[in-house]
Amino acid sequence: MIKYETKMRVEYYETDAMGIVHHSNYIRYFETARTELFRSMGYSYNELEKSGIFMPVLSVDAEFKTPAVYDEVLSVFCWVEKLRGASIVLGYEVRGSESGQLHVTGSSSHGFTSPDLKPLRLKKEAPEIYEAFRKAME
Amino acid sequence: MIKYETKMRVEYYETDAMGIVHHSNYIRYFETARTELFRSMGYSYNELEKSGIFMPVLSVDAEFKTPAVYDEVLSVFCWVEKLRGASIVLGYEVRGSESGQLHVTGSSSHGFTSPDLKPLRLKKEAPEIYEAFRKAME
Amino acid sequence: MIKYETKMRVEYYETDAMGIVHHSNYIRYFETARTELFRSMGYSYNELEKSGIFMPVLSVDAEFKTPAVYDEVLSVFCWVEKLRGASIVLGYEVRGSESGQLHVTGSSSHGFTSPDLKPLRLKKEAPEIYEAFRKAME
Amino acid sequence: MIKYETKMRVEYYETDAMGIVHHSNYIRYFETARTELFRSMGYSYNELEKSGIFMPVLSVDAEFKTPAVYDEVLSVFCWVEKLRGASIVLGYEVRGSESGQLHVTGSSSHGFTSPDLKPLRLKKEAPEIYEAFRKAME
Repeated sequence: MIKYETKMRVEYYETDAMGIVHHSNYIRYFETARTELFRSMGYSYNELEKSGIFMPVLSVDAEFKTPAVYDEVLSVFCWVEKLRGASIVLGYEVRGSESGQLHVTGSSSHGFTSPDLKPLRLKKEAPEIYEAFRKAME
Repeated sequence: MIKYETKMRVEYYETDAMGIVHHSNYIRYFETARTELFRSMGYSYNELEKSGIFMPVLSVDAEFKTPAVYDEVLSVFCWVEKLRGASIVLGYEVRGSESGQLHVTGSSSHGFTSPDLKPLRLKKEAPEIYEAFRKAME
Repeated sequence: MIKYETKMRVEYYETDAMGIVHHSNYIRYFETARTELFRSMGYSYNELEKSGIFMPVLSVDAEFKTPAVYDEVLSVFCWVEKLRGASIVLGYEVRGSESGQLHVTGSSSHGFTSPDLKPLRLKKEAPEIYEAFRKAME
Repeated sequence: MIKYETKMRVEYYETDAMGIVHHSNYIRYFETARTELFRSMGYSYNELEKSGIFMPVLSVDAEFKTPAVYDEVLSVFCWVEKLRGASIVLGYEVRGSESGQLHVTGSSSHGFTSPDLKPLRLKKEAPEIYEAFRKAME
């Protein structure tokens, strides 16, 4: 299983009055991380959408272990946890790049749909992409 | 059990290129809703923090059922789902105010802590607030 | 001249590590305020877009006088400053609702365009809307 | 004069229902760009704050020329435009990294202050930092 690592730096506008990253921003970091995982597999999400394959978020969850702070460099790991014919589950781990400290874990599930958000059987409609996801999970 | 309703309108900056509310914003709507639930109980979160009681988010999850759109008025319901000595679980439901359509469900868990984020036994340290939360759950 | 007042409360996720509202959020407050000004005039921006009239932002500026803080109720005033055939300038003032303290002043200019962002002479294409804006300026 | 270039990619959550980057996000890109300009000069803003030097935003303005889109790689250029004893003006230019197309120009002015936001004469209090800013402007 490939745990793809995306590095990013905490911006000032992502912190809150507690002096730490506001928890809602990790949900955004997850999005950046899965986008980069897909890109590393040869499929930019932008091009997927342009070719008619959307992946709307069905659910998301996150556990906040320790706070990340302003200017910290984060390593956000993302991997394919489960793959079904018309949906996928991704896993996430956010760590301090230098400290290695675990900040957040989480997962998100996504449907494969047409642009009008109707379910689409990826395995049948785009078998090469399905195969790429399947391999990434191994 | 009180399901407290907070109304809000979807802003343009909360939509994304899919033409719907970006999923990360619901996590922010949850925060607004619990803040207003607490206020309705007589305890503004702002004053809780000033009196030394913090409620950092330990975990959050959300299921996205149907998309909300620009300028839609939303009813975000929030209630106390579980209460323990040093933590609390809140539930959420986001509906279109007019349509009644269910957009999102979710929950969040929070610890009670001191300003330096050390666990604090609410039942012992602030029994009247603990009692207010307990009553809200009934 | 109508200075339309929109009230809003500062959310936790809008604060930053300085303990105050992050300056970028005032640009978002401006958007909310002009949306409500238009609505008060009988033209929701949502319906304007649906009828084919877009108002992309051409420029924005803001002066930050004093910081607003978490949970503060703000009064954001918005008014029509200038109106030309194909563009409009709006003015803004953000004050503490209770204190009356001036936090931020600013302005934004907008073109009137078709959905594909081509300039549109509002005075000719939608004279009744042009007239409403003109009256609001008086 | 050093026009420092910071590259960043447009995230999905930064787009809006028009299918383009929401204008408020450029104000955030400016912040990222000046942070990286300072870092390139040997002064991380994080460390400046820790050493007691704050640079709150006094004003900001932006002109939106052409829209940037999802997944586009942007080059945000930032430079020192003016330097006074207790304040500084920075300039910005946002371009498509590949196309070179100009999307946005802007500027921001900042005071130098103590942590309690009282004005601080940088030239006197931290002459080596003042000198670094002065050199960057040449």
